[in-house]
Amino acid sequence: MSRSKAAVLVAGSWGTALSGVLADNGLEVMLWTRREEHARQINRERASKGIRLTPGVTATSSLEEALSGASCVLLVPPSDAMRELASRIRPYLSRQALLIHATKGFEASTFKRMSTVLAEELPEFDPDRIVVLSGPSHAEEVALRCPTTVVVASRRLEAAEAAQDVLINSYFRVYTNPDITGVEISGALKNIIALGAGLSDGLKFGDNARAALITRGLAEISRLGTAMGANPLTFAGLAGVGDLVVTCTSRHSRNWRAGSLLAQGLPRDEVLKEIGMVVEGIRTTQAAYALAGIHGVEMPIANELHRVLFEGKAPKAAVEDLMGRGRTREIEEAARFGGTC
Amino acid sequence: MSRSKAAVLVAGSWGTALSGVLADNGLEVMLWTRREEHARQINRERASKGIRLTPGVTATSSLEEALSGASCVLLVPPSDAMRELASRIRPYLSRQALLIHATKGFEASTFKRMSTVLAEELPEFDPDRIVVLSGPSHAEEVALRCPTTVVVASRRLEAAEAAQDVLINSYFRVYTNPDITGVEISGALKNIIALGAGLSDGLKFGDNARAALITRGLAEISRLGTAMGANPLTFAGLAGVGDLVVTCTSRHSRNWRAGSLLAQGLPRDEVLKEIGMVVEGIRTTQAAYALAGIHGVEMPIANELHRVLFEGKAPKAAVEDLMGRGRTREIEEAARFGGTC
Repeated sequence: MSRSKAAVLVAGSWGTALSGVLADNGLEVMLWTRREEHARQINRERASKGIRLTPGVTATSSLEEALSGASCVLLVPPSDAMRELASRIRPYLSRQALLIHATKGFEASTFKRMSTVLAEELPEFDPDRIVVLSGPSHAEEVALRCPTTVVVASRRLEAAEAAQDVLINSYFRVYTNPDITGVEISGALKNIIALGAGLSDGLKFGDNARAALITRGLAEISRLGTAMGANPLTFAGLAGVGDLVVTCTSRHSRNWRAGSLLAQGLPRDEVLKEIGMVVEGIRTTQAAYALAGIHGVEMPIANELHRVLFEGKAPKAAVEDLMGRGRTREIEEAARFGGTC
Repeated sequence: MSRSKAAVLVAGSWGTALSGVLADNGLEVMLWTRREEHARQINRERASKGIRLTPGVTATSSLEEALSGASCVLLVPPSDAMRELASRIRPYLSRQALLIHATKGFEASTFKRMSTVLAEELPEFDPDRIVVLSGPSHAEEVALRCPTTVVVASRRLEAAEAAQDVLINSYFRVYTNPDITGVEISGALKNIIALGAGLSDGLKFGDNARAALITRGLAEISRLGTAMGANPLTFAGLAGVGDLVVTCTSRHSRNWRAGSLLAQGLPRDEVLKEIGMVVEGIRTTQAAYALAGIHGVEMPIANELHRVLFEGKAPKAAVEDLMGRGRTREIEEAARFGGTC
């Protein structure tokens, strides 16, 4: 009996780490990258973006080769590349395949969630078979087989359970959650709070201030998410609190790093150059700023970050303004948290 | 006009830091400590437990001197000393005073909350004037005037607002919350999760594992708290998520340190000797283990810690058993989170 085959697109650090999980679980994995030279380099060096390739993983720049016969297709492009990638895989994607994406962000121009973009670009594909993977999961640690716990969500439980079956193993624990909307929204919005935490840490405001920012950040993410149709409980789970904590408190996070560079006075474009990778939190700040207006939701942290990133406000003044809001009752703020609670 | 007077008991690091907040706000502050020699030393060195005394703060070992004419009395003893301290202040405490406590833990022998202990030992005092102060607030950072956000809770809003008025300033932000039960429970129980996080970090399990532990820890704290009459929203706020994050992720926490020493194979009593201070999380693990049984609530993290601390289980096996629980649906776990959500 031949082994099941999976395709992972693209070969960034998260994609490469996830290809290792699938290979550890006995699948034959094709890891796709755009440029042929890059695919050759990955196969030669047996590594991509600092993550070592697991035996059973082969890089390719051919979409046809990657997708042909793949029963599981895992998409992890930057959010602004999802639509184009989806349209390119359309001719090769089997309708029987399981489609999982692990991209955290909204489409910049439309503020749409990634599963919406996929459904639009893949009209022949059953949208109930689209699964999102999220949760506290630094690629570097997954590649080292550190114990990691994630969540998979889909509109239909069977699809989430199929993703759970293909991904779960001794170091990679997978929970299912039916709230695809909430999981995608919290995965995108947490990057804003990570930027804010980096800003606060860069200003040496301390652990107390950062914890307050995370708490109030969780509240505003939940407010917007609930207004957009998410289940408030999702924000208390792995894709919410869990991912927020790991992104805001650990040295691996590039959104956190971007915030700490902003705090040092580096302008936005210099920060992007310095990090040399996509900083989803910067785009997501724009999206959240717009979505908060559309849905009539208060998002003080996203607003202040918008002022820093796009209106030239000094980071220190922004964080001080956030801390300095008047006498407030927590329960009133909290009551807006869940809406239905 | 003479200045208002506050008394702070006892002169540990958190009491000393809070005496500085009150002094910064213009109050005359008496900082009480049990031994006369210690009081003299504090006044001579203008510091206690590594925290510098703020001008306007005077140490004393006389309860009468500390409490006489004090309109605000702030209690911060270790949890097992609260009952005795309350009975000792009874003769001197004005019925018009505002009584705030900032102790995180249950009474070891009865599993009672601190405000219950206070109400029992101070029968002439209106229990609606008892306030609890909690939230993400390392003493060392408050002493350095780092921006800090806390919550004050009381059965009657007026008392919480009075505490807010006396404590709030530019670096110390104070929110009110009517859920004294939830604020006290989350303050006590978070120390268990901090122990667990220290254990996981001590085993080098990584940021992903720690974030998962914090998330699932929050869920089990909330389950027990809700069963004990707390408002589930409190656990999403500063006393819940906020304090959990700061205690589990920063180098100041002695509960975290205790966990990381346990992970290195040090037995419980050696850990206590090494830290040389009260480790509330160890006592609270016993309390939570018992309370979970009484209220019929599942608390896997508290249970595993109980096995490590009191039944000789190896830390690595405990954390692996926590990670290795079977295929689970997050929403079912989450649904048990709030109960009413």
